[in-house]
Amino acid sequence: MSEVRTDRRTRGGGGAARRAERTTLKIETARFIERGIPNYEMLNEEALEVIEANAEIVLEEIGVNFVDNPAALEVWREAGADIQGERVHIPRGLARKLCATAPSMITQHARNPERNVEIGGRNLVLAPVYGPPFVRDIAGGRRYATMADFQNFVKLTYMSKWVHHSGGTVCEPTDVAVNKRHLDMLLAHMTLSDKPYMGSVTEPERAVDSVEMSKLLFGADFVDQNTVMTSLININSPLTFDSIMMGALEVYARANQACIISPFIVGGAMAPVSVAGTLTQVLAEVMAGVAYSQLIRPGAPVIFGAFVTSIDMNSGAPTFGTPEAAQITYGAGQLARRMGLPYRSGGSFCGSKLPDAQAGYETANSLNVALLAGVNFMLHSCGWLEGGLVSSYEKFVMDADQLGILHHVARGIDISENGQAMDALREVGPGGHYLGCAHTQANFKDAFWRSEVLDYKPYETWEDDGAMDTQALAAIRVKRLLDNYQPPPLDPAIHEALTDYVARKKASVPDAFV
Amino acid sequence: MSEVRTDRRTRGGGGAARRAERTTLKIETARFIERGIPNYEMLNEEALEVIEANAEIVLEEIGVNFVDNPAALEVWREAGADIQGERVHIPRGLARKLCATAPSMITQHARNPERNVEIGGRNLVLAPVYGPPFVRDIAGGRRYATMADFQNFVKLTYMSKWVHHSGGTVCEPTDVAVNKRHLDMLLAHMTLSDKPYMGSVTEPERAVDSVEMSKLLFGADFVDQNTVMTSLININSPLTFDSIMMGALEVYARANQACIISPFIVGGAMAPVSVAGTLTQVLAEVMAGVAYSQLIRPGAPVIFGAFVTSIDMNSGAPTFGTPEAAQITYGAGQLARRMGLPYRSGGSFCGSKLPDAQAGYETANSLNVALLAGVNFMLHSCGWLEGGLVSSYEKFVMDADQLGILHHVARGIDISENGQAMDALREVGPGGHYLGCAHTQANFKDAFWRSEVLDYKPYETWEDDGAMDTQALAAIRVKRLLDNYQPPPLDPAIHEALTDYVARKKASVPDAFV
Repeated sequence: MSEVRTDRRTRGGGGAARRAERTTLKIETARFIERGIPNYEMLNEEALEVIEANAEIVLEEIGVNFVDNPAALEVWREAGADIQGERVHIPRGLARKLCATAPSMITQHARNPERNVEIGGRNLVLAPVYGPPFVRDIAGGRRYATMADFQNFVKLTYMSKWVHHSGGTVCEPTDVAVNKRHLDMLLAHMTLSDKPYMGSVTEPERAVDSVEMSKLLFGADFVDQNTVMTSLININSPLTFDSIMMGALEVYARANQACIISPFIVGGAMAPVSVAGTLTQVLAEVMAGVAYSQLIRPGAPVIFGAFVTSIDMNSGAPTFGTPEAAQITYGAGQLARRMGLPYRSGGSFCGSKLPDAQAGYETANSLNVALLAGVNFMLHSCGWLEGGLVSSYEKFVMDADQLGILHHVARGIDISENGQAMDALREVGPGGHYLGCAHTQANFKDAFWRSEVLDYKPYETWEDDGAMDTQALAAIRVKRLLDNYQPPPLDPAIHEALTDYVARKKASVPDAFV
Repeated sequence: MSEVRTDRRTRGGGGAARRAERTTLKIETARFIERGIPNYEMLNEEALEVIEANAEIVLEEIGVNFVDNPAALEVWREAGADIQGERVHIPRGLARKLCATAPSMITQHARNPERNVEIGGRNLVLAPVYGPPFVRDIAGGRRYATMADFQNFVKLTYMSKWVHHSGGTVCEPTDVAVNKRHLDMLLAHMTLSDKPYMGSVTEPERAVDSVEMSKLLFGADFVDQNTVMTSLININSPLTFDSIMMGALEVYARANQACIISPFIVGGAMAPVSVAGTLTQVLAEVMAGVAYSQLIRPGAPVIFGAFVTSIDMNSGAPTFGTPEAAQITYGAGQLARRMGLPYRSGGSFCGSKLPDAQAGYETANSLNVALLAGVNFMLHSCGWLEGGLVSSYEKFVMDADQLGILHHVARGIDISENGQAMDALREVGPGGHYLGCAHTQANFKDAFWRSEVLDYKPYETWEDDGAMDTQALAAIRVKRLLDNYQPPPLDPAIHEALTDYVARKKASVPDAFV
């Protein structure tokens, strides 16, 4: 986000002058990250083979449960699995073979084609936090999220340069009926932003609504032939696939829409208390889920997901930014690449209650790892607080700013003649300085990434300006962004069709709050 | 640091019971990190060769200045360099050839042999912040550092499990005369801690004092035959070696004591505004400095240093945790390994004025990079605030806690039978949980790293306990550590000899405050 002032700042003009000051925000969106740097391969070949062999043992000998889903059991039986009650035992090699039809690269279209994303390969697509029932900001504290909050986070995402994807449940709008809120959420993503978005997964029929509304936005033919949604299918770890998530997966796979198939694991509780054991379970679960998607429709676009963290054995709380989470994120990336699947992991994870130093450490630990682990789709890349219970306004803009670092690191080191800067070295020589040399003058504007949130002031200026911490600086930016929000243009006929669909669907059933 | 309670907590006992509660702190020091994980190689062979060839051009065609040091110029002339005034032009290949006699691994002895460190190879040794003239804590704010502060930081380092090295100027004790404070600083490291330490470099004669006091502590013969100090020799970038730093280097090299030879670079000011150009200059500077150390004494222990960060082109402030700093840290590590030299870089770098979210992000960015970049000696690994102007009490314990993450990530992924955890997967199966299974019971104590500072409480408990942020939690830990400090045992005769030396030297000259 560049901020372009349209007038000059009036020095010492007081409140009136400051109120009169007008600024215009120029909306820029960076293209998704295309890495020019290698991935970090933590595990060696031998370790990877052990984990892969163990995952096959898990699928064959232990098996996975497909719960309340007789049709799925029948599909598996026909594919060659051994069915015992709801337990599916998948013979060695079958799951991996079925997974082979899944594409390695997914192009997800946005209504603004400039915002299309390509998920896979060496790319990294960033999407905001998903799922918190609470929001927090410096003025209002922690409270249940509302639809107004939801709209605010969609707006903030739209205005964040380094965030490529509008996401899904940026917070849970608890003031709208459970059976209707997906309609309002989709409408917000479709009308307040032009970035790609996610569909609803909380009931199969809500996935159908997501497809129908997307057809209104993109045209039915376009949706039939292209991927316009990436939705989040969580696995009930350990090794359980429930009928609601599988129902949504079935809808999306049949419609050729993308799904992340993702174990949701707090290590020590939903997986073994060891990294290799957790990776084994993750791989087995993803293979079973992806294989099932390909049984529904060969070639359906799916992503290898891994939401994995560790647990504090004293309190039972999930912990974030930990060394075990780092190791799992690196290892799962290697396993995903060996399957030829796009990889989802990472995020602005933290356990802290406030956007404080703990939030900064834990989040940066997670973001740095995700970049080098080869993540292709990063949900929760900004705004996550308190173990995912809270969408934080201030942390959203802090994190979104830090994502610029990932873009710049990923470019790699420019080794062109200009990058080598031998002219500068010759011009300046021993004892000089580079601030005014020709090479610096030619390159300084783009040479270094610059934060739009953090404090770079001299100490005395910072103190005179109120000695603000990061949270306070971020709150100013949140207000400035929301005050300056302008929706992207949308054909009024499409807007009306979407609004009508939502109104009609809402009127067709009574509110339900469970 | 494990905290072992010596009594049982009295439930609901109120203030009196809490005051009566006694805790004992058990001092543990982790062994230096021996990486079980690969380094991250960001640059490819071609890029490395370009930078290495350019560095040779810099040394030959541009040259380096050895200022106010005619003896050094004579040494260089005899070695085959072309001397023009104070400019030393080093023929292609000569510097690298001279560097070859430097050892690739340095064993630095501590007075407690259990605290010895081995600097080089795949190891990582962690030392605290170095150099700030100010300190900050939550109660007293920002103020000039005193000798009492210095002693406190030595104590905190001694009590920090993940910090292996006592460091040097943990803050600048401004209440002691400039020409005498090195004596008090050395005395503090030698008596308040038993971890290895650094010597003084601010005048060659202070380096001599450092050697003399070390002889009192270790015995003269031991110091003649072993490395007991690692000291910091900064290069005046660009390409300038001043007589004070070189004078200290000469003292230490002749005494076979280790030096870090380290460009101090804010990119865009003291080096080109590009990463490859900066790496070229860093390599040229280190090669010249290391070559000079080997001319003084072949085999003298030296470390390839790189303190490099970027500049904010708007304010001129140095910035930390940036993408450019990350790229330089990775690249310099590769260059150091190709020279077969131990590598010093990284730290708890941040530009923020407070130990807030900015401090957390920037520090974690820096620490994560340093681990994977193959750093062998990390100065500033805890306590750094405000661009190095401030030693922060609270940030010290926050950072020192985060260093535990580096230890655990570096272990790599356990792929033993126990690590594979197949028994756990079989025991629990689909839909179960792992909290009570045999594998978890056998492994939970050591399975996951756990912070001693950060908040893992349930929301309501955290709120009832005062809704503290990280700074407030850290302040409690600082007080607890300092309240419980006990010095390590030291032979009273040695203690007296050191105290006498300091008293005698102090009495021999008047105070100087410049």
